[in-house]
Amino acid sequence: MGDLSALPSLSASERTRHRRLREQGRTDREELFAVLGAGFVCHLGVIVDGAPMVVPTVYGFDSDHVYVHGSVASRSLATGGPAPVCVTVTHVDGLVLARSVFEHGVNYRSAMIYGVPRALEGEEKLEALRLLTEHTAPGQWDYARRPNRKELAATTILAVPLDEASVKVRQGPPDDADDPHDVWAGVLPLAATWQPPVTDPLSAREVPAHVRLRAGTRLGGESPGD
Amino acid sequence: MGDLSALPSLSASERTRHRRLREQGRTDREELFAVLGAGFVCHLGVIVDGAPMVVPTVYGFDSDHVYVHGSVASRSLATGGPAPVCVTVTHVDGLVLARSVFEHGVNYRSAMIYGVPRALEGEEKLEALRLLTEHTAPGQWDYARRPNRKELAATTILAVPLDEASVKVRQGPPDDADDPHDVWAGVLPLAATWQPPVTDPLSAREVPAHVRLRAGTRLGGESPGD
Repeated sequence: MGDLSALPSLSASERTRHRRLREQGRTDREELFAVLGAGFVCHLGVIVDGAPMVVPTVYGFDSDHVYVHGSVASRSLATGGPAPVCVTVTHVDGLVLARSVFEHGVNYRSAMIYGVPRALEGEEKLEALRLLTEHTAPGQWDYARRPNRKELAATTILAVPLDEASVKVRQGPPDDADDPHDVWAGVLPLAATWQPPVTDPLSAREVPAHVRLRAGTRLGGESPGD
Repeated sequence: MGDLSALPSLSASERTRHRRLREQGRTDREELFAVLGAGFVCHLGVIVDGAPMVVPTVYGFDSDHVYVHGSVASRSLATGGPAPVCVTVTHVDGLVLARSVFEHGVNYRSAMIYGVPRALEGEEKLEALRLLTEHTAPGQWDYARRPNRKELAATTILAVPLDEASVKVRQGPPDDADDPHDVWAGVLPLAATWQPPVTDPLSAREVPAHVRLRAGTRLGGESPGD
């Protein structure tokens, strides 16, 4: 992704500043790209008929946008005119088991991006779909059949600018070492690992190397706490 | 959880019916409880200043409610009067690697619950916190120090009724066996596994059995596709 340190800081709007655990807020772009790079499923928040709706979907990104794959929620956005969304990406790294129930928590890395999305068309849509596909399933853009005109038309890709975002990270042991209740305390880490590929019973082909070599690797790499 | 089959079906409101991939929608309670039981982190969608905000947080549940742990977002809900929320729980079971990019996707289990939450107080709050703690970190309610009055007052627990919900499940191989592009196709499964506990450097105690025995087990059990 090149040198990102030269980019301006992400705006710390009222919304991103006044968040829980703000001492953990990290507003620089490097942190944001690290969180986006570590996953491929986000939770897209939209407003439908005055109520929030949160749908899981896949995403990709470049230095300026996160690209979110279509669904009814995003299609209604695409046709309903400009409306704000929130894209949240969360990695759960472990459970924080403290001496007190009150200090229990989760070690995690999370990014929230706020913005008004734009539905892409034409070449822009194709390029964003390529980014999204290669981020989610590296190697598949050149291996699988690329979308034809009809398939591309049936795909919705929303681009959300990376202008307003916040990153929260919580790692390490519990914070209540001074608690009078002297019991074991620590972290129970959680790791998501790619498993050996399962060939479609209707496919007679060998598993290609770019798929086979992912098995055994960890989604999102090592957590900062490792 | 006892026999849930006697409970009425979840309401299929306009919102839950008109969702993407509705042929995958499963509105019975057993499916809902299976998805809720398989995880401990949800994404809570709220509206703040007219825009959606999606925050990850921990949850617990019983046969009537999902209980969501507080944050700035839920605290503003708690003080700002009744407002709708969406609670989404998603398990990612694998990548669907199809013959065509268009048919690529994710094997997943997801539940969305819509409702107007109620901030709990007193005994109700304590009981919900117990449920949430035992769901997230089984055994810790009796092992760790329970919240005192001050800690309980500083905790926000929202109860969202399980009246309006939808469950989506996608499992199995890709659906494009008839695609002319004859390449390998299949699924790359993803599994989240609890790792060996990491003792707080400031704790001199032995890891208790209820924590130690979780290491090596899989979050959410086996996916329906296994």
